[in-house]
Amino acid sequence: MRTLNVELAERSYSIRIGSGLLGDARLILPYLKTKRAAVITNEVVGPLYLDAFAAGLEDAGIRVTRIVLPDGEAHKDWPTLNLIFDRLLAERCDRSTTLIALGGGVVGDMVGFAAATYQRGVPFIQVPTTLLSQVDSSVGGKTAINHPLGKNMIGAFYQPRLVLADTKVLDTLPDRELKAGLAEVIKYGLIRDLPFLEWIEAHLERLLAREPEALAEAVERSCRNKAEVVAADETEQGERATLNLGHTFGHAIETGMGYGAWLHGEAVAAGTIMAADLSRRLGWLSDADVNRVRRIHERAGLPVAGPVLGAERYLELMSHDKKVSDGTLRLVLLKAVGKAVISAEAAPEQMRATINACCA
Amino acid sequence: MRTLNVELAERSYSIRIGSGLLGDARLILPYLKTKRAAVITNEVVGPLYLDAFAAGLEDAGIRVTRIVLPDGEAHKDWPTLNLIFDRLLAERCDRSTTLIALGGGVVGDMVGFAAATYQRGVPFIQVPTTLLSQVDSSVGGKTAINHPLGKNMIGAFYQPRLVLADTKVLDTLPDRELKAGLAEVIKYGLIRDLPFLEWIEAHLERLLAREPEALAEAVERSCRNKAEVVAADETEQGERATLNLGHTFGHAIETGMGYGAWLHGEAVAAGTIMAADLSRRLGWLSDADVNRVRRIHERAGLPVAGPVLGAERYLELMSHDKKVSDGTLRLVLLKAVGKAVISAEAAPEQMRATINACCA
Repeated sequence: MRTLNVELAERSYSIRIGSGLLGDARLILPYLKTKRAAVITNEVVGPLYLDAFAAGLEDAGIRVTRIVLPDGEAHKDWPTLNLIFDRLLAERCDRSTTLIALGGGVVGDMVGFAAATYQRGVPFIQVPTTLLSQVDSSVGGKTAINHPLGKNMIGAFYQPRLVLADTKVLDTLPDRELKAGLAEVIKYGLIRDLPFLEWIEAHLERLLAREPEALAEAVERSCRNKAEVVAADETEQGERATLNLGHTFGHAIETGMGYGAWLHGEAVAAGTIMAADLSRRLGWLSDADVNRVRRIHERAGLPVAGPVLGAERYLELMSHDKKVSDGTLRLVLLKAVGKAVISAEAAPEQMRATINACCA
Repeated sequence: MRTLNVELAERSYSIRIGSGLLGDARLILPYLKTKRAAVITNEVVGPLYLDAFAAGLEDAGIRVTRIVLPDGEAHKDWPTLNLIFDRLLAERCDRSTTLIALGGGVVGDMVGFAAATYQRGVPFIQVPTTLLSQVDSSVGGKTAINHPLGKNMIGAFYQPRLVLADTKVLDTLPDRELKAGLAEVIKYGLIRDLPFLEWIEAHLERLLAREPEALAEAVERSCRNKAEVVAADETEQGERATLNLGHTFGHAIETGMGYGAWLHGEAVAAGTIMAADLSRRLGWLSDADVNRVRRIHERAGLPVAGPVLGAERYLELMSHDKKVSDGTLRLVLLKAVGKAVISAEAAPEQMRATINACCA
């Protein structure tokens, strides 16, 4: 088992990474406030892991409320969130009940937001079951639901007490989701960790073949990058925004295509190619750099072009981005491969050129 | 103008109290992050104060989005909250937009929660326009909406950047709301400030006649008590819960009668008599003490008996209280007039006796 720490003063917590962790309730017990927990999952992950996981806690004397949500980004909304509140209240879960998110990024984001707001805040634990949530969304305390006009528009910064990443559950992950997760792994290399990018380039086939040691290494190095950035900038006043490389274009794709049509990681992959293309137009990347960015995504089986929505529609969707400040859109771009910046330098004309060149 | 500070390290802020403050935009300007604000009010307060208030900001170069919500506790819910999000997104309000709550407790609670969760948090300012919100709900960062199974069940601790309490607007407050506000004023005397209770007993007629100096004094002394308690215990791990004297019975009345049938302050008044009666049954208050508590509420024109819901229904509603911990209901009771405690000592039998004795 590998252990990392996210250093946030009184909100610090550990990330534990290893194979088979889900089966060991002793890893969870020290983090429960009382002998009362609610395990919240979805209808895909639930049949695979909920009973064994909840039974492990119950054997240790914990009273567990089980909540199963509909699956998918399209359900990351208020009605689904309210299903959680309805059950917590009906079962008299009080302020000391710990919420445990068992699932991917959608479950983690929603349960985190439920924990942030149920009775003004209850403890919660992340048990991410997809590669994407293990390397990114379960760490750092960003929680949210979507709004019809924009992704993750309603949410809170609210840190978990523990993140438990069991790499064994990745065995049952559909190929498409594994690849989507790799988009966020590649991201860390591109924005701040060139040696990690080189490692990914050297070991991509092992990751795609789900070799346990390679996956554990990728999860750990990703989480270490995430933990460092979050510790330096918890509420995204500055550097943390670089974790959103490819996300402004990507969110436009997700919202424009309807939540769930593209997986988040797929939209981020296409968005990252667009960010690289735009960085080239600003004179920061060479053609060879852009090809390198495109190539690693291609090898990972990820889309390297966005859908055709029209440049104006892209710009309209991007104007709702949370990085807009005082009316100005700021984008995460690459000064070099391995170095991201937040920039308002790209002109709308350049953005249009990138959108037209990178969507097909 | 009187100024108090709520000391919460980097979340500290000022409360400004005085007559006519609403007309002076210069009091607000230093607290806006950018030249963009959304003023959110309701259909009762809006026609009285929105135009003049927003125009003052606009004259100073601020772009103001005006949002008018339906009035009343029955609308302190998700659909109404979502009206705020819809407008903020439609008008492209970004993370640097400051939300300003212009209204009573319902508006303040909802706008605070909207600010806590819109794009994971934007700055906000409280401009309370009722006595109740000036002396209590606008200070301390408790924000929430109601759930059909319980009041204030979904919310967050989120502090404003400024509270601006204009005592002149109390001139237009309906009598019933003025009296409801007095319930929370009396509360501070009962829980921790006997000299203030004696002052209220001596000056109640001046308060009911809305003498400006008396009202300003009551608001300031109430806010000073609130600020001290909040500074010591921001997230209600302990002492802060004593501010909820009468609220567990009171919330049961509000939820049981349907949100809006009883004003919050009215329900708190009846709930406070019940808490006093229960404290007497535990041997902590004398008959004379209970009569003193009843008398000051009677003189303020407040209800001193709860509605007949049946003891079992009261207990059922009270079991959803946020002060329930590990299944045990804790109540705020009085060890003496002027000294509140949080206690799990009252047996259900004693609670039933109190409910039966105090509801008619």
